[in-house]
Amino acid sequence: MRCIGIDWGSSSRRAYALDENGQLLAERHDQAGVLHAALNGARGGTLGQRRDFGAELTGFVGDWLRQGPRTVWLSGMIGSRLGWREAPYLPVPLALDQLGAQALDLDWPAARMVCAEPPRLRLLPGLSQLPQAGLADVMRGEETQLLGAWRHWQASGRAAADEALFILPGTHSKWAHLRGDQGQAQVLNFQTFMTGELFRLLSQQGALGSLIDSTLPLLEHPLAQQGFDEGVDWAQSPEHGLLASLFRVRAEALLAPPAQRPGGTVEEIRLQAAARLSGLLIGSELGQLLRQPALRALPLLAVGEARLCAWYARAAERLGLALQCLDPREAHLAALRALEGLGD
Amino acid sequence: MRCIGIDWGSSSRRAYALDENGQLLAERHDQAGVLHAALNGARGGTLGQRRDFGAELTGFVGDWLRQGPRTVWLSGMIGSRLGWREAPYLPVPLALDQLGAQALDLDWPAARMVCAEPPRLRLLPGLSQLPQAGLADVMRGEETQLLGAWRHWQASGRAAADEALFILPGTHSKWAHLRGDQGQAQVLNFQTFMTGELFRLLSQQGALGSLIDSTLPLLEHPLAQQGFDEGVDWAQSPEHGLLASLFRVRAEALLAPPAQRPGGTVEEIRLQAAARLSGLLIGSELGQLLRQPALRALPLLAVGEARLCAWYARAAERLGLALQCLDPREAHLAALRALEGLGD
Repeated sequence: MRCIGIDWGSSSRRAYALDENGQLLAERHDQAGVLHAALNGARGGTLGQRRDFGAELTGFVGDWLRQGPRTVWLSGMIGSRLGWREAPYLPVPLALDQLGAQALDLDWPAARMVCAEPPRLRLLPGLSQLPQAGLADVMRGEETQLLGAWRHWQASGRAAADEALFILPGTHSKWAHLRGDQGQAQVLNFQTFMTGELFRLLSQQGALGSLIDSTLPLLEHPLAQQGFDEGVDWAQSPEHGLLASLFRVRAEALLAPPAQRPGGTVEEIRLQAAARLSGLLIGSELGQLLRQPALRALPLLAVGEARLCAWYARAAERLGLALQCLDPREAHLAALRALEGLGD
Repeated sequence: MRCIGIDWGSSSRRAYALDENGQLLAERHDQAGVLHAALNGARGGTLGQRRDFGAELTGFVGDWLRQGPRTVWLSGMIGSRLGWREAPYLPVPLALDQLGAQALDLDWPAARMVCAEPPRLRLLPGLSQLPQAGLADVMRGEETQLLGAWRHWQASGRAAADEALFILPGTHSKWAHLRGDQGQAQVLNFQTFMTGELFRLLSQQGALGSLIDSTLPLLEHPLAQQGFDEGVDWAQSPEHGLLASLFRVRAEALLAPPAQRPGGTVEEIRLQAAARLSGLLIGSELGQLLRQPALRALPLLAVGEARLCAWYARAAERLGLALQCLDPREAHLAALRALEGLGD
């Protein structure tokens, strides 16, 4: 085994093991995110009683250590002040090959309990955008995805340009403008949208929560597609901002109750409302591209969970934009190969 | 005692008792709102075990009944499907003198336990805006405030016009375009903004919740004023929508931690972040006025809690708009006088 990469985020973590040739040997995933307790209970709940992340990591991939990996790479919220240790934010513009060099070495005593020669444990830095370089912004974890996504895209044969906008949908959706610079990807600037977090908050509680079943999957249901498209369209009205359009999801559901719709059921209304909210939020995010002409002209690439990216692609198409989806797993593997100096 | 008016909303209720001349005799307020349990626990929690609103009402104002009021007027979410009984929505455009005539008579057996001749219990309808008349929208409770606010404004001697935009800030902020028609106020159209609900959700949880002390009052602190103004300005950037600006509140707080600011404390950073979030949301709401020229030209009146209205007035001033504040208590009393056919 050459190395292990762990994308340790707020709500979950995912581990990959690579062999000497950079091929995937094994993969693991669980819900032990850095903010797991904090998100599900009182805020800041983990501050008082710090978790033993070293022991948690050994519990997660301890058996892999016996196969002699040289490095374990950590990325994501594990490097925040709520995580294991706070890693620096590197300010953009930044060449992404700096990430590995700027990683912090962490002490990991628990590893010596399971193997004689523990791997080097490297905590990757995040990125920041200081106010003088654009809107203040930060990311943790996505920088590693970007490093790999760029390489994966360049190696795919589908990259007709040496510049692109990478969109990483999720709780905090990130847009990053990347440009090739002597074979290396440089992050010129980035911006964060609270799209996923708002969907979660609004679909689970408050005025919309009672109308939306947030556990209902958005399947390829015609009603979901129709509701999503309506939401995307609602988001494009300059006259009505997001604050008003959000309430429209409620008003439309109240004024068109199931009994008044032939064949309409409560489940269908909930599905429709969830789809409208989703379309409204994603449409609001992507609609900003129409107001940022410099970005709109770039190739657009989405890196994230396939189903979510498919919805993003649907919204983009409705806005006259072409969005290509990349596999986030392939991106992470490509990032690990880059960090290890292996070819693709 | 002539009548009792009860503004029974989602999170609280307020009762007023008027004498034969329409003067205030007594007033009461508590937190037993219609969604009280639902908001503080699992959603829809009240659906299974319906509350006995009749008994709750007797407990609230039973002692007043011995003074022989003829009518008890109920307005607000008590008339929703989660309340006592669902009252209809009257579609706009609507003359507000229709409200009393269209009220539902409720049966109130519990009242006969405390007085021989119980008052008539009248549940006021809400308003709806059907899709053919604008964006679908609904209100419950605000229509009664509007009826009174219009009369209070007209009687104040400060009404230079026979038309105005009334803004009712709160969990779901309402804008209503009213016009005088043969001495009666007519609601032409209205729109709802989820301003207050988003502030509550975002300041208590998620990425911003840990940075904001939502219990911190927004006092006349210079840092709060400065942060609020920044938020209002952030909301006016067409290039950066609300979803991106929300995350900016977090990024600015992370990139300018207390230790790097001379004299800055954690409390100050939290106050600043809360003020920025508030300015961003209120600025986003009021900024829509700049995109609705027909409304922008009207006299602007805010009816709501004094401190909240003061922040709205500050945001309006920053946007070059003049916003006059009206007392919501005076508005409700004027509404009761109108419903009872009493002069001001």
